[in-house]
Amino acid sequence: MSTSRRAFLGGAVGAVVAGGAAGFGVARATEPDADAQPAPAVPFYGRHQAGIATPVQDRLAFAAFDVTTSDRDALARLLGAWAAAAAQLTRGLPIGAVETSPQAPPIDTGEATGLGAARLTVTVGFGPSLFDERFGLAAHRPAALADIPALPRDALDAARSNGDLCVQACADDPTVAFHTIRNFARLARGTAVMKWSQLGFGRTSSTSTNQETERNLMGFKDGTRNIKLENAADLDDFVWVGAETDRDWMRGGSYLVARRIRMLIESWDTDFLADQEHVFGRFKSSGAPLTGTHEFDAPDLQALRGTEPVIPVDAHIRLAAPSTNGGKKILRRGYSYTDGNDPQTGLLDAGLFFICFQQDPRSQFVPIQRKLGSHDALNEYIRHTSSALFAVPPGLSGPGDWWGRSLLT
Amino acid sequence: MSTSRRAFLGGAVGAVVAGGAAGFGVARATEPDADAQPAPAVPFYGRHQAGIATPVQDRLAFAAFDVTTSDRDALARLLGAWAAAAAQLTRGLPIGAVETSPQAPPIDTGEATGLGAARLTVTVGFGPSLFDERFGLAAHRPAALADIPALPRDALDAARSNGDLCVQACADDPTVAFHTIRNFARLARGTAVMKWSQLGFGRTSSTSTNQETERNLMGFKDGTRNIKLENAADLDDFVWVGAETDRDWMRGGSYLVARRIRMLIESWDTDFLADQEHVFGRFKSSGAPLTGTHEFDAPDLQALRGTEPVIPVDAHIRLAAPSTNGGKKILRRGYSYTDGNDPQTGLLDAGLFFICFQQDPRSQFVPIQRKLGSHDALNEYIRHTSSALFAVPPGLSGPGDWWGRSLLT
Repeated sequence: MSTSRRAFLGGAVGAVVAGGAAGFGVARATEPDADAQPAPAVPFYGRHQAGIATPVQDRLAFAAFDVTTSDRDALARLLGAWAAAAAQLTRGLPIGAVETSPQAPPIDTGEATGLGAARLTVTVGFGPSLFDERFGLAAHRPAALADIPALPRDALDAARSNGDLCVQACADDPTVAFHTIRNFARLARGTAVMKWSQLGFGRTSSTSTNQETERNLMGFKDGTRNIKLENAADLDDFVWVGAETDRDWMRGGSYLVARRIRMLIESWDTDFLADQEHVFGRFKSSGAPLTGTHEFDAPDLQALRGTEPVIPVDAHIRLAAPSTNGGKKILRRGYSYTDGNDPQTGLLDAGLFFICFQQDPRSQFVPIQRKLGSHDALNEYIRHTSSALFAVPPGLSGPGDWWGRSLLT
Repeated sequence: MSTSRRAFLGGAVGAVVAGGAAGFGVARATEPDADAQPAPAVPFYGRHQAGIATPVQDRLAFAAFDVTTSDRDALARLLGAWAAAAAQLTRGLPIGAVETSPQAPPIDTGEATGLGAARLTVTVGFGPSLFDERFGLAAHRPAALADIPALPRDALDAARSNGDLCVQACADDPTVAFHTIRNFARLARGTAVMKWSQLGFGRTSSTSTNQETERNLMGFKDGTRNIKLENAADLDDFVWVGAETDRDWMRGGSYLVARRIRMLIESWDTDFLADQEHVFGRFKSSGAPLTGTHEFDAPDLQALRGTEPVIPVDAHIRLAAPSTNGGKKILRRGYSYTDGNDPQTGLLDAGLFFICFQQDPRSQFVPIQRKLGSHDALNEYIRHTSSALFAVPPGLSGPGDWWGRSLLT
């Protein structure tokens, strides 16, 4: 690409960021006053995007967008405007002034004013469909961004699946998280439209040894053996894209898989305690594996009681264990959700909005889920109702950088 | 009613409460150990139900149920089981043991274990439809529980409106709130079915002078002039049912009106700041009325700029003001909501799940909303998409008491 084109795009993005275009611009990211910076804030810039190896926040607002233009420069401007907005929001600042001119719409919608940063992270990804012919990106698609194949027992709703772009906003305050995807939707007007969105209200994984494991809506602790941010080797081996990639622009990035897993909780709730514990392979109260007494005891998959394995052959903990999956691990970052109830039956539409990050879904999520979908005792009580995959590029270097800049300029 | 029938029903409820019936019972409410009582907890028993004049918690889970039996005793047992469960939950305790027998389902579903009471309140109400012929309650229906008439600009979805019973669960933790309605739905199996439900994530009202006013999804502070729990005279005059009632069983109770108010936020977001401020009659940043400089300044509805009122004649703050409504006030306790987006347009389904409490909706919510629905400048940006009314009986005296006991025994 020519230098002049780069310069032009840099200028175009700069103009949006400075608040020029159509009233939807955002303030240029600058260092705020010490007084104006509410704690706690998670740094936005860095080698990796925040929101992956960040201690899991309490609340999630997730949205997938489809790009509605084939104008590559418009897509670049959008990503630039989103990056500048995220830099502000993650400091607890509005994306731009609420009060500029009385005769203009406020730049920030205002509902999160006063709520602080609330540990907001904004993580952006590119879906496989972004690498079609519209933007000239086909040659840049990583092999690891292969469409997720049909998996056993899939019951997917296409309207809630996939998308050109995704935004994962996590924060300790739900209004702060929602405010992010709402303002991102607003900044996208004319360029991209929200395809689907999901709120999550209870974190079901921990990503730090300093975090307790919360229970999923089945009442079990299931994120116990997750990759923890304190284990740099696991992050390098299983989460961050490294030298193994065929696309340099993804180095330092990761791949996000999202699955909306509806729990048939009314059926689950009639199951006997012992059966529930055999399904997971854990004790319900303590969270310990059936071969242990404490939550973090390593499960003994060889242990027998008589001739029967203590942890059943179809127990979730066994089938999901790294040792059952060639040593492969994924970093889970899912949230409980509920979207009301079926008006015909009264049954709750509730479950787990599963999110995981990994170096290569082809050797991590896909084979693990193929095994779980075929054999997991949990299958009787769950349905995977959506699926989405996104390439999550590396972190941004500082003000003026944006996701995919090396691809689109 | 005969003494023997009362004794029978007392016994039946007692049996459920003791965990006997069909595995869905709940533990008898007893004083827990000091060690086992997580703080902070809001007292459950008292003259009035908690969750009305209680400082607004951060999160809401609301559900309406339809009773599916005409067995009056079954309804009584359900209400007794709910009351015993609520007494446990509001102390941060499970409704019954998670581990009883391995060959029985756990009594509590378990997902809130370890999260504490989180200031949970559980508020139960009776819809007008409960007072039909099924349970012999027609003669007990209060005049104030008159169906809400059609109001200007109503765009109501019947599937999200009304119901025989309601449960308002408010807590500072969303999982604690959800856990309550989920377990109530479970206890109701065979007797009542969930008709609709709603999560709320950001409180938009404060009910205490010690609480800050949070912003609604239009970015404005709108709950400023709410009734505050520190003002006992306002509560007696406008919230609690007193000597004026035609039904003694409602004394100490209140009436709950819920309205799902969708905001057309994409349209709102294109409106100029000055227009937005004229619609509300407040400054966006400070929350002050247009005639003041601080949020809690009283609006001056007579103030003119030239010949024009400073607070426009159709401003929300003017039309909702007590002085415009014969001195009438209501206690608001609404929450922001979002239920995803329209897959066709990408527009967010988001807004305010409005809840208010009052002594008599016929002279409070109904005429106020009739005026607002006809004249409020805000109407261009909102749609009332559901409506529900419930008689909220007084508080429970202690273990063994339940909502409507004087009606059903």
